[in-house]
Amino acid sequence: MAWRDKGKRVVTSNKELVAEKGAELLKIAAEHGCNFLFEASTGGAIPIIRPLHQCLAANDITAIAGILNGTTNFIITKMINENMAFGDALALAQKLGYAEQDPTADVEGHDACRKICILASLAFGKHVYPKWVHCEGISAVTLEDVMYAESWGGAVKLIGSVKRTDGGKILPIVRPAFVCSNNQLSHVSDVFNGIMVYGDAVDEVMFYGRGAGKIPTASAIVADIVDVAKMTETSISQTWEDSSDDSFIADYKDDIVSVYVRVKGVPAEKISEAFGTVEYLSRDGQPADELAFISPAMKERDFDSKLEAIGGEVLGKIRVLELE
Amino acid sequence: MAWRDKGKRVVTSNKELVAEKGAELLKIAAEHGCNFLFEASTGGAIPIIRPLHQCLAANDITAIAGILNGTTNFIITKMINENMAFGDALALAQKLGYAEQDPTADVEGHDACRKICILASLAFGKHVYPKWVHCEGISAVTLEDVMYAESWGGAVKLIGSVKRTDGGKILPIVRPAFVCSNNQLSHVSDVFNGIMVYGDAVDEVMFYGRGAGKIPTASAIVADIVDVAKMTETSISQTWEDSSDDSFIADYKDDIVSVYVRVKGVPAEKISEAFGTVEYLSRDGQPADELAFISPAMKERDFDSKLEAIGGEVLGKIRVLELE
Repeated sequence: MAWRDKGKRVVTSNKELVAEKGAELLKIAAEHGCNFLFEASTGGAIPIIRPLHQCLAANDITAIAGILNGTTNFIITKMINENMAFGDALALAQKLGYAEQDPTADVEGHDACRKICILASLAFGKHVYPKWVHCEGISAVTLEDVMYAESWGGAVKLIGSVKRTDGGKILPIVRPAFVCSNNQLSHVSDVFNGIMVYGDAVDEVMFYGRGAGKIPTASAIVADIVDVAKMTETSISQTWEDSSDDSFIADYKDDIVSVYVRVKGVPAEKISEAFGTVEYLSRDGQPADELAFISPAMKERDFDSKLEAIGGEVLGKIRVLELE
Repeated sequence: MAWRDKGKRVVTSNKELVAEKGAELLKIAAEHGCNFLFEASTGGAIPIIRPLHQCLAANDITAIAGILNGTTNFIITKMINENMAFGDALALAQKLGYAEQDPTADVEGHDACRKICILASLAFGKHVYPKWVHCEGISAVTLEDVMYAESWGGAVKLIGSVKRTDGGKILPIVRPAFVCSNNQLSHVSDVFNGIMVYGDAVDEVMFYGRGAGKIPTASAIVADIVDVAKMTETSISQTWEDSSDDSFIADYKDDIVSVYVRVKGVPAEKISEAFGTVEYLSRDGQPADELAFISPAMKERDFDSKLEAIGGEVLGKIRVLELE
């Protein structure tokens, strides 16, 4: 890339590039007096990179949580609103051109992972590489899970999030989550994206809009181009450092979580024995040998041991979103 | 004000000042080579002035609609969620310090009016004075209205909005509105604000957060201060022209609206006669002589004549929000 001349500007919408090589590119740009902007790489039309940077000026960001992939949100919305099974909703998304013929990057959460890496890097100042982020997609989410989430008072959503942890580390993760209806993210439907930013001064701020599509993405690119065109000198303020290892990334197994569980063939006594008091959920057509509940909050590795201890067949397991 | 020196910067959170004197102050600032920033004047902690300006770079803004006043949104939320009457909810808001002892500016929509004037001026480039904006508050909204809105599939919200009209004018207005649950604004609760921006490229983008409070407002002010501190030279891009008269403001009576109506002592035949086919709503405890319906879309002045023609006692009348 011919970045030798001072005053050169680069604008990209390539999220894979920024997520994998952002720190390196920002360093090269700084060395050569270039501007490197990437508003369109995350959240499509939603102005997020620049507002997040602006929020940072006056806030300690404590967490970010977002619905960052429109394709999976479309699939989940069809499951919730029209009772479509995952496979049927995916086929419809493909027919409408929202999902690729190979939908892996969307459905398994890789696309959301790249975006939360970009936001985490920007918010916390060190490059977060996708390979360091625990990532689960929505292919295992069933209609039954969606129904239980509704009876609980919320919705299943694919959430990419990052938060500060007690040990001075950060915890980025991508996974389906039970999102309470009090949280604005639970109301973000169809192909729309929503990004919630938690900070000590702003409390919570959400940015919502179309996360993909030619025209919305073009809108973000144009905003970047106008921005760099107005810059009379280099001013790369949206930057972060490279990171040599993942020692600042917390292990998600140490995070405190409540988890929704759907099991077959497990008596309620065994559940109480392992988990103490749980919140049972119900659904239409629930078979006599099926139980669904929300576990008390505990370290995920402890939850895993307890879940193994109760035996039976685990038909569903989705974490409850808690960041505040 | 000692703005004589080039490079001076002014940052304000005073919405009344910006709504009443913005064009004049922006002109003086430009003449004296000063920066004049006012992010905190609208939406409190929510970054909206700068992102809106950024959106403008690549979009023709077609409309803006917002929940711009946290106090009234808190009152309405209490009415919806806890069945509190307007007076009780207002008293609670006063007790909690959300509402002033004289709550007129909030409750009658004057505060929301100032904010939509600022957003309209910025989006459409000409100063919109509050005196030109038709403004209705929430003091006439009843628990019955709130219940009918729910049965219709939405919520009553105090909405400040502005949109381009067919005749090349703009229509700013503040009024309670029936907001459909498909619209993100219907889910903005408590003291939170939400601002939806409609543009030809972005489609719709929403900004959500705390609209008031010392710390959130301070956060927006700090963002402005950091911004001006980084500016090596004057760069007032967030500006608009003054307007000598209101000839560019459309008459709200000419706008096409659907309206929710609650009447007593009017037979259904009279309603059909005047309005044609309407959508009837129902609520718990609805008396036999009460009817509530959504009118077909028509010019507001035509609606008014028809409503007068049906006679009876009008107990409630709230416009349906339609901007898209």
